[in-house]
Amino acid sequence: MEDTGRDDEWLSTWIGGSSPDRITVAGRDLPGDIMGQMSLTELAYLLITHRPPTPGERRLLDAVLVSLADHGLTPSALAARLTFTGAPEAVQGAVAAGLLGAGSVFLGPAGDTAQFLSDALGAEAGTRGGGEGDGDEGGGNGDDGDAPALRRLALEAVTACRRSGRRVPGLGHPVHRVEDPRTPRLYELATEEGLLGAHMRLLEEVRDVHEEVSGRGLPINGAGAAGAALADMAVPPTSVRGFVLIARTAGLVAHLAEEVEHPIGMRLWQEVEHRASTAGHGDPTPSTR
Amino acid sequence: MEDTGRDDEWLSTWIGGSSPDRITVAGRDLPGDIMGQMSLTELAYLLITHRPPTPGERRLLDAVLVSLADHGLTPSALAARLTFTGAPEAVQGAVAAGLLGAGSVFLGPAGDTAQFLSDALGAEAGTRGGGEGDGDEGGGNGDDGDAPALRRLALEAVTACRRSGRRVPGLGHPVHRVEDPRTPRLYELATEEGLLGAHMRLLEEVRDVHEEVSGRGLPINGAGAAGAALADMAVPPTSVRGFVLIARTAGLVAHLAEEVEHPIGMRLWQEVEHRASTAGHGDPTPSTR
Amino acid sequence: MEDTGRDDEWLSTWIGGSSPDRITVAGRDLPGDIMGQMSLTELAYLLITHRPPTPGERRLLDAVLVSLADHGLTPSALAARLTFTGAPEAVQGAVAAGLLGAGSVFLGPAGDTAQFLSDALGAEAGTRGGGEGDGDEGGGNGDDGDAPALRRLALEAVTACRRSGRRVPGLGHPVHRVEDPRTPRLYELATEEGLLGAHMRLLEEVRDVHEEVSGRGLPINGAGAAGAALADMAVPPTSVRGFVLIARTAGLVAHLAEEVEHPIGMRLWQEVEHRASTAGHGDPTPSTR
Amino acid sequence: MEDTGRDDEWLSTWIGGSSPDRITVAGRDLPGDIMGQMSLTELAYLLITHRPPTPGERRLLDAVLVSLADHGLTPSALAARLTFTGAPEAVQGAVAAGLLGAGSVFLGPAGDTAQFLSDALGAEAGTRGGGEGDGDEGGGNGDDGDAPALRRLALEAVTACRRSGRRVPGLGHPVHRVEDPRTPRLYELATEEGLLGAHMRLLEEVRDVHEEVSGRGLPINGAGAAGAALADMAVPPTSVRGFVLIARTAGLVAHLAEEVEHPIGMRLWQEVEHRASTAGHGDPTPSTR
Repeated sequence: MEDTGRDDEWLSTWIGGSSPDRITVAGRDLPGDIMGQMSLTELAYLLITHRPPTPGERRLLDAVLVSLADHGLTPSALAARLTFTGAPEAVQGAVAAGLLGAGSVFLGPAGDTAQFLSDALGAEAGTRGGGEGDGDEGGGNGDDGDAPALRRLALEAVTACRRSGRRVPGLGHPVHRVEDPRTPRLYELATEEGLLGAHMRLLEEVRDVHEEVSGRGLPINGAGAAGAALADMAVPPTSVRGFVLIARTAGLVAHLAEEVEHPIGMRLWQEVEHRASTAGHGDPTPSTR
Repeated sequence: MEDTGRDDEWLSTWIGGSSPDRITVAGRDLPGDIMGQMSLTELAYLLITHRPPTPGERRLLDAVLVSLADHGLTPSALAARLTFTGAPEAVQGAVAAGLLGAGSVFLGPAGDTAQFLSDALGAEAGTRGGGEGDGDEGGGNGDDGDAPALRRLALEAVTACRRSGRRVPGLGHPVHRVEDPRTPRLYELATEEGLLGAHMRLLEEVRDVHEEVSGRGLPINGAGAAGAALADMAVPPTSVRGFVLIARTAGLVAHLAEEVEHPIGMRLWQEVEHRASTAGHGDPTPSTR
Repeated sequence: MEDTGRDDEWLSTWIGGSSPDRITVAGRDLPGDIMGQMSLTELAYLLITHRPPTPGERRLLDAVLVSLADHGLTPSALAARLTFTGAPEAVQGAVAAGLLGAGSVFLGPAGDTAQFLSDALGAEAGTRGGGEGDGDEGGGNGDDGDAPALRRLALEAVTACRRSGRRVPGLGHPVHRVEDPRTPRLYELATEEGLLGAHMRLLEEVRDVHEEVSGRGLPINGAGAAGAALADMAVPPTSVRGFVLIARTAGLVAHLAEEVEHPIGMRLWQEVEHRASTAGHGDPTPSTR
Repeated sequence: MEDTGRDDEWLSTWIGGSSPDRITVAGRDLPGDIMGQMSLTELAYLLITHRPPTPGERRLLDAVLVSLADHGLTPSALAARLTFTGAPEAVQGAVAAGLLGAGSVFLGPAGDTAQFLSDALGAEAGTRGGGEGDGDEGGGNGDDGDAPALRRLALEAVTACRRSGRRVPGLGHPVHRVEDPRTPRLYELATEEGLLGAHMRLLEEVRDVHEEVSGRGLPINGAGAAGAALADMAVPPTSVRGFVLIARTAGLVAHLAEEVEHPIGMRLWQEVEHRASTAGHGDPTPSTR
């Protein structure tokens, strides 16, 4: 190719590249500097934030990821298993089908919460990424002057949300109505590692304000706490949903490994077909459209 | 639901489940026994093989995963970025599009190599999973009596493969024609951790035999070495392609984070459109169908 | 399965079902009443609206579908072809990858326009579905008293849209800046078939009002006109994006048939890789994150 | 872009293209020559085979497509509906999830049958595309000398298939054990339109030979008959699976339209979760991996 002189800067990527005798990932030599040195979690964080995590961040990142990897026979896991039933030779398709359900209802709330909190904290706080464990800024320092400020931001954000008819993200769970067991554990780990930052603390204020304003107490859900923790570790809110998809892929791959040994898809289909044909009298919406 | 008495054993899963005050993953309490204790890599391995990895296995598993996470602007990364161009609000769709290219040509060879080696080693060896770090069986012990046996298996497998017109999986790479830089590093790490098992050793014999038989020296590629290493750590061959998809998801998510800051998709489209309309005289296949 | 007495009404579907000697689709006998009698377009419309189209509707539906089937090497077509490069054995994955780019930027605007117009016309008009070819209601009758009412609705809708910072859907096109050639043809066909209804007419008012209010003339784009035409034929706005995906599937399948004979994916990858590695100095975003 | 002089022939496409005032599809003017003139089925066929169908072919093509559009709550439809439950804002993802199940088990057999018959008929017959309604070649002419030749080809193909342990494609159906009601209708329509070609006739011989050789009578299934009919109309076997995906998209879109009005996904999940947690004693595979 004779592309001398063309400006192809726009077509370059920092993420990875290779030449006949070398593979580079994140500007580092893959075999020498990454293989045997970094975990997948560390590499994912490095690729997204452009710096490796500290040991404390690594522990909290893994806690976030394992907390979202799987929850049993969810719609997402069922979609993956049913897809595998039809195309067992293309496992990438079954995994993709499972990921496609990670939208506004499931998993998406992690990113929505990160964005909501980041917007409430304002542009400059978003850039700082909240507390980063250094103990001397707005994030994790327990400064008395800070809590009232967060409370005010929470009140503004919750009020604006309710006024426009949207739900406050990060609160409530259809199964864990009193407390989502992942939430206190994430707060505990963030505290242990000195990583309890502005986003996680604001989310607690949001929960309290929401209860006062609505008269209805809703717990912080695991997805919301995860999104806040990632935002506190400077993962951009627009990348939070993507980041947690890595964990979900692990869960889906496990379901497909189990589906090989202990298939559910075919029998679920047969049961549904049988019940549908027995119950259905032709038209589930007889008098409409 | 009143389903008392029905046998729903077929509908249960070991992977995960939840009740109002508890979430269980792999039969363990998620907040207490997994969060803060296990990395995503360890959990993925546990979910697929039903036991946690040893520290040595964990290091080799992470080396395998980071070696396959990304290779720059591959067809898979480009497909994800182009999908994001059209649907930036549904990042799960862009990740899914990227994963869908992980078929027989890219990434799939990891699983194909694992299956090929496992079949060659025979059913009983497959069950043993090769060397598991214990140093006293066929796998990593350097027993002299072993090598001729592996060589014989390699010869049979390569011959059968060539006779049926199929390519021997795990060998050759379009870019790394002399040596894939990931391969010696994976062998080095496996050796360091006492995990050089029957699959990895057989793959070396396969490479040598292939060169002798075909007269053409092809290096072991990174995907092949990865598949052999996973098979040596008892990941079922049918789960190898899935397992490496976890790593690929991390790479794709990084590309999409970069696409937000430094978009390629829209401009690539415009250049292609421009060149296609300038060059194309209507029909690229004028005289055929 | 012994589920006697259970109420499985919720699990039934009107769309299709089968028993050992019979297949029913849309409540009709598939071989006798549909095969040989209905086109795919007619069946799709029947399945979504629960009635077959009239001959005029069938012609306009096909015009809408063929207008959106393909536009050359779009991001969606490129994503499909690049996915096929990696997984040629799973053509369903390549088609799925192409469809996943049909989001808010491409193709999605057809449904957004239908929803926007339907909301502006109000609930009762949405139910009526605008003009249905009967010539005696608000839709296609050219009643003078109607235009001022539509103009008022357009003004309200455009104003509300601009106030909330959203773009008015259905207007403007990056390539067809003066006129999208599909739009006048759709209006012509709708008029010929007596199907020019309230949604299509409102969209013309929206275009005029938008120009007056913004000082910027934008043509009705083909996706917007298509969405309006489908809404006039009583396709629910929530099903418009789905309906046009049928057409897009046809275009993608054609690209993949061409990719078999005249491959683009592999060579496009190689060119991109080459240019990226030549131009890239390691980090496209050196001073940020 | 300054790419003068570069040879970009490889980057052109015949399928579609656009300039500011013109859109071309299949080398024709889209608004003038296609919209209002051709159905989606006709355009899809034109794009894949590079010629428009005859009226008889159009009827048979639509019969094939409507025969494969939907069969009720199949794994594919369930996967689409469950995906919609999690991401209702991204209907393209739900459609994609449904398509991903169209692999070797479901829908794929149409293409497998076309390939099997085409291979059996040999390269030159595959090029000719069997009988194309012209009545003077091997396909549909009822030439007495033809049947023994087809029978010999069937015997060779069935024997080779059985010897290598593969199933003969196109035969047998889990529900329609005696006769698939779509099959006689497709043969009847092909006969009516003078399109009963070599592939469809060979498939009948394959069925008869299979019964004689195996002692087990299996009917020609609908997917197999559809694949044979498409091959007789010169659709390349590699495009058959793609072609029928167009029809499947229509069925999936209908399921998602119904899911909006009459949701199944959420309740199906809840029932599965409930039954799984009641029945599951933690490990479905207690004594194994």
